[in-house]
Parts: sequence; structure tokens; C-alpha cells
Amino acid sequence: MNDSPLVTSEALPLGFRFAAVKAGIKPSGKPDFAVAVTDSPASAAAMFTSNRVVAAPVTVGRRHLQHSAGRVRVVAVNAGNANCATGQIGIDACVKVCSAAAELFQCDGDEVFPSSTGIIGVPLPAEKPIAALPQIAAELDATPERFSQFARAIMTTDTRPKVAHASLQVDGKQVRLAGVCKGAGMIHPQLVPHATMLVYLFTDAVIEPSVLNTLLQQSTEVSFNRISIDGDTSTNDTVLLLASGASGAQVGEGHAAFREALTNVCISLARQIVDDGEGITHVVELQIEGAPTDRDALTVAKAIAHSPLVKTAWAGCDPNWGRLMAAIGYSGVAIDPDRINIWFGEQQICSNGGRVANFDEAAAHAYLKQREFVVRIDLGIGTGSCRFWTTDLTAEYVSINADYSS
Amino acid sequence: MNDSPLVTSEALPLGFRFAAVKAGIKPSGKPDFAVAVTDSPASAAAMFTSNRVVAAPVTVGRRHLQHSAGRVRVVAVNAGNANCATGQIGIDACVKVCSAAAELFQCDGDEVFPSSTGIIGVPLPAEKPIAALPQIAAELDATPERFSQFARAIMTTDTRPKVAHASLQVDGKQVRLAGVCKGAGMIHPQLVPHATMLVYLFTDAVIEPSVLNTLLQQSTEVSFNRISIDGDTSTNDTVLLLASGASGAQVGEGHAAFREALTNVCISLARQIVDDGEGITHVVELQIEGAPTDRDALTVAKAIAHSPLVKTAWAGCDPNWGRLMAAIGYSGVAIDPDRINIWFGEQQICSNGGRVANFDEAAAHAYLKQREFVVRIDLGIGTGSCRFWTTDLTAEYVSINADYSS
Repeated sequence: MNDSPLVTSEALPLGFRFAAVKAGIKPSGKPDFAVAVTDSPASAAAMFTSNRVVAAPVTVGRRHLQHSAGRVRVVAVNAGNANCATGQIGIDACVKVCSAAAELFQCDGDEVFPSSTGIIGVPLPAEKPIAALPQIAAELDATPERFSQFARAIMTTDTRPKVAHASLQVDGKQVRLAGVCKGAGMIHPQLVPHATMLVYLFTDAVIEPSVLNTLLQQSTEVSFNRISIDGDTSTNDTVLLLASGASGAQVGEGHAAFREALTNVCISLARQIVDDGEGITHVVELQIEGAPTDRDALTVAKAIAHSPLVKTAWAGCDPNWGRLMAAIGYSGVAIDPDRINIWFGEQQICSNGGRVANFDEAAAHAYLKQREFVVRIDLGIGTGSCRFWTTDLTAEYVSINADYSS
Repeated sequence: MNDSPLVTSEALPLGFRFAAVKAGIKPSGKPDFAVAVTDSPASAAAMFTSNRVVAAPVTVGRRHLQHSAGRVRVVAVNAGNANCATGQIGIDACVKVCSAAAELFQCDGDEVFPSSTGIIGVPLPAEKPIAALPQIAAELDATPERFSQFARAIMTTDTRPKVAHASLQVDGKQVRLAGVCKGAGMIHPQLVPHATMLVYLFTDAVIEPSVLNTLLQQSTEVSFNRISIDGDTSTNDTVLLLASGASGAQVGEGHAAFREALTNVCISLARQIVDDGEGITHVVELQIEGAPTDRDALTVAKAIAHSPLVKTAWAGCDPNWGRLMAAIGYSGVAIDPDRINIWFGEQQICSNGGRVANFDEAAAHAYLKQREFVVRIDLGIGTGSCRFWTTDLTAEYVSINADYSS
């Protein structure tokens, strides 16, 4: 396993220490328990899956943030087991891990934020992460190596760790922002404020929890809520943003530069998730324009992103735009087929609902052979629009997920 | 190609003649143009796709039924080209074929009901079916052989023809009912009264068009509107029911025995479509119970039937019921996870939202190895229920649809 650092020291937000160990939860025996500890209580904001079946750590994490009024000292993440559909036993197991971490790091149990990712419906062996806590405590450090180990330990079917960072000057002070995430399947986050994608964002700016919430919602809406690999919305999706305040630089709600930096980090992480989608061979950016509303544009994007026939055509680099038309038609949006125009990159394929007169099939096929390409659709009705990132659907995706028991 | 008859003479409804020929539309060169002609104008009822992008024959067929007040003399179906997203040229091509058929069979143009299935977005070469009409006229016959040729000519990616029939006594007279259909991919019919699944139902009962409409809607709702292979709703789906009246037996709206026979034929055809789904290895009957409403039960069934993770687990005979829980949770229905019970056949897997204490994974795996199995889910809330038929998702499905240009 490649252990090289994914960021430089300069990129690491101040006020956080990281560690990851092998707790024995993943059958592979790889590192599976990651912890981040703040030097003093950090401001926190989180968004969770809108799935009505939620994992125990989602229930517990939400409750802890309420009780602590948005303060977090410890983030404790295990991979290899989702602790979902595990009933009261699952809640108890999650609380036990939090309590043990609180005792070790001398904070309140409510200041521990738990996460889990892995198989659903199998009881979490709480004793394993608990037994690993002393080693975690011994290895905690504010170094690129430890941060990178954190990013790797939370992986499941991911083929690579995902990090993004940004820095900016606020009132003459340097503010750092760094994020890590995991996710490759069961990816169609539908995050609501109160997603098995896990995202942890760290900054050393000084930000109040309420401001942090607003900033996180705005950035999530145009990043993690704009991607889909397989259309399956997980029971565990979580995005957590922590602000340690260690830079001493104050950031308020109207701070455009910080918001932009945060949004860019979120979009980078969201695209990395799509790019590492299970078995994928193409990353597709959908640009939907001319919709009645932005919401309608998003509805059309999702109908396309979830169409097995569109996604398999992409896998074959097949310019079969009729499948796009069918998906647009059943999306539920009040479209007019005769007003639809479609481009693959710069090449127009469909004009006013029909094939362009000079359709160059070979050129379209060549364009779709690229790993990344853009499909632009103008519905010709209104001004609603969106950008959305998705993937093709390959035989490899099927193999990964039909492999009993993955 | 197997040319053996699919029904006996006794099963054939009186008053219809059939033929099918090679018009040169399918690249394979197989028979691709099928016609049914009634001896005198038949009562007709049809249901079409709810997709907002509709093929030219759907537009034309709907108009013809209105103009003729529900009377049909000729059904003309081509496979190999969907005549969809083809604009006014497509409408013109469709009307040309209808006009040529009307002239040949000496009826009104509005009494010709057209259908097309195949690739979307490619202009239909109207001259090909038109040139084939004389051969059609020469071969028309009321025989099992011709009926079976009709069933085979309308196939696209189907691996086999699909027919079903029933007969019953009405007022001492024998009434016959026979149906043919095609469909293997882009199957998630959402039929509305006013689906590339094509279904043709023939009976020799005497039935008024308005009664025929009511009967067809009732039967379609619990058959073709209860299946999904890939969740893609086609632009061309069509169900047509013709009553020649040749038996002399009168059937009214309240005729329970006829309605039951019609529903059974529709369910048989619907299940045959699922059973011939592209690349499938399992047919799954979902039984959803205890939902707030029947509509909610259907919503949950569709979330499960459209989940790539659930469908790939089935492909692997994998009793990963956590994926079922996730799909139920994101369906949008107001479920309570702790009240959910799940059975694979007779074996209970999940009790009150958690794994049953005595979970026998090997037995569950063995059950899921069968080609057909039942997944029963009790949501534990209300009395809403539904039956729904769907499939697994295999690497073969991906190969079929990623094969440029299918």
C-alpha cells in the first residue's frame, strides 16, 4: 500500500491531529479506523443522508451535534461495517465507541462525532475500535502522513484516497482548508441539513457553527448533491465541516472568498468520487440549460444519470442520443421534444428534437471515446440550468457488486 | 429460425387475419413488418407511453383512434426502427404507410393503427414497408402459422416470441382471447389511457369501444404497469386491444369472467417480457405489504426494482438485504425502519428492521440461486400492497446495450 503523503504541511489546517490504525473490521486486514482530534473544541456543521433508513452513527452524530451545540473534539470513523439496520444494538455499539473515545481524549461524549461505512445489516463489533484507541492516541499527529492515513483508512471499494485543499488570506491571516472523502458505489447523495459517501472538511478559520451550517449547505448543494454513480442513496452519507479557529482569522457568512474556496474544495472532492466510481470508464459532465426552473434542470440531469440505457451507451462510446431523448421524456419535466438541442462537446447532435442534418457519427463516436466528456442539453423553454457529474455503467460495475458477498 | 406455431387453431380469435414479411428494415434481414387485418371494423382500445417524447406512430395511432371513434381494420407494425425523434418527417412517413395500407385493404386511413420499435432518432424508410404490402396481402391468413409469424416479426432484442391466450363461455357462446407482445429492454411501462413494449390483444367478443377502454385500463394497471427490467420508460410503448365481434357473444363492463381472462392474459404476457429481459438470470416477484397506500407500495417496489445495487446483488444470488433496506429508505415513502420485515420465499431475513437472530445465510443464498424467487416485504404501517415483477442486472445486460450501435 502506498503510504506517501497526499498534501504538504503547508496545506494542513492548524488545530487538528490525525491517526488511523488496523482495528480488524475490514476482512482485508487493511487500516479501518480513523480519528481526527482537535486541540480545543471546534465549530462543527454537518449534513446527512435524506434516506429514511439511517445508520446508527447518523442518528448518534446528529444527536451529539445538537447536545454540544455544534462543537466537536473527536471524529471517529470506521470502515468495513456501516452499522446500519442494526437496531438498538447498533446505537449502543456506536455510543460505546464514542464514550471510550471521550474518556481517552478527556471530552464530553457529545463532542465525539461517529461515522461508519461498509456492509449494511451486520452488527458492528464495538470492541475492535475501542481496543484500537490506545494505539490511535499514541500515533495522533498534525502531519501530512497522518492526514493521508486518515484518508486511506476510510476507503471501502475506493481505488484511491481523495483529498482537496485550498488556502486564502483573511484579514492578513493565512486560512487553510482541507478535505478528505470516500465513496465509489451507492453514490447518489441527497444531503439534507439535519449522505456511503463520507466527507470531512477541516479549516483553521474562526467560524460560528450557525455560519458554518449556512456555508456548508450552500457548497454541498452545488457539489455533493450534484453527483450520481448508481443512483443508490446511501444510509450513511455524511459531510462534516470542522473549524478549529487556530488561524485566528474570523470568517462570517458573507465572506465570498472563503465560500468560493469551500465550494471549490467540495466540487473537487465530489468529482474525485465520480472519477473513482465502481468500474467506470467515463466521467460525464451534464450541462442542462433552458429548463423551466433550476429544479427541473436537476430532475432532467438525474433522469439521464440514472438511465441504464444511457449509461451503457456511454460505456460503448455510442452516440445513441435517442436514449437521452427517452430519459428526458420520462423525467416528468414538462418538456417540448421539438425544442430540444443536444451537443456532445462542441458537436451538435440533435436540433429541435431531430438528428442534425450533417450528423457526423464517426466524430461523435471519437469524442465519446475520451474518459471525460460533456453532454450539453438545451431544453429551449426557460432559464433553469444545472451542472451534474455522473458516470457510465460497465460490466465491471456489475461484477464488483454481484460478487457475493461484497 | 423456429417457425413452429405458438398457438392452436382453437385458440385463435375469429375475425382476424395475420401476416409478416421481411421489409428490409432490420439490419439482420429478419422479418420486420407484421400486419393484422380484421374482416370488418373491430372495436379498439389502446394505452400509450406516458413519456413526453413519443414516437410518430404513437401520435398518429392516438389521432386515428379518435377520428375513427375506436374502430380499427388494420394493425401495421414494423421492428428495427422506432420512428421516434424524427420530427415531421417521421409523422409523414408513418402516415404514408397507413395510407398505402388503407388503399390496399380498402378502408379509411384512420382505421389503420401503426406501431414501430427499434432504434430512436433514425428516419424510417417508409418505402420499405410500403413495398412489402402486396406480399403481406397475399399471405394474410387466419392460421396459427401466420399469427406466430406476427409474434416473431415484432421482436427486437427479444430472444423468443411471447403469446398468451384464454377462452371462456359467454351466454353459451365460445369467446377467444389471444395476445402477442415484444420487449426485453427499455422496459418500465408507464401506460396512460390517451408503452418499446408492444402488445396486441385480439378477441372475438362483441365489445363496445368505451367498455373495451375500461377493461384494458383495469387489466394493464395490474400487469404491464407492474413490471420493470431497466427502469427506462420507452417512447413507443403501446397496448392495443381489438374486439372483432365474430363470436357473436356480447361482453359488457361488468363481465367478471372476461375481465379475469383478459387480466390473466396480460399478466402472462407481462411476465414473459420480464422473463426475456436483456441478459437477465433471475425473475423476481416483489410482494410489498403493509404500506400506507397501494400507491406507496408501488413506489417502494419501483425503488427496489430500479436499484442497481439490489439488482446486482440478485445477479450474485447474494442475500445482501441491507441494499433492500437502503432502497426502501430512499423511496420517498414515509416508512419506519423498525417495523420492516423481509422474507426471501418462506425464510424471514429481517425482523423489525434488523437481521433475524437465526439468520441462515447459506439457506438464503441457496434460495436466491433459483431463476425465479419471491421477495416479500411488510412495511408494518398500513394495508397498502402490490405485486411487481422485475429482474437482476447482469454484465450481459451491459454488454448488450454497450454494443455500439445496438
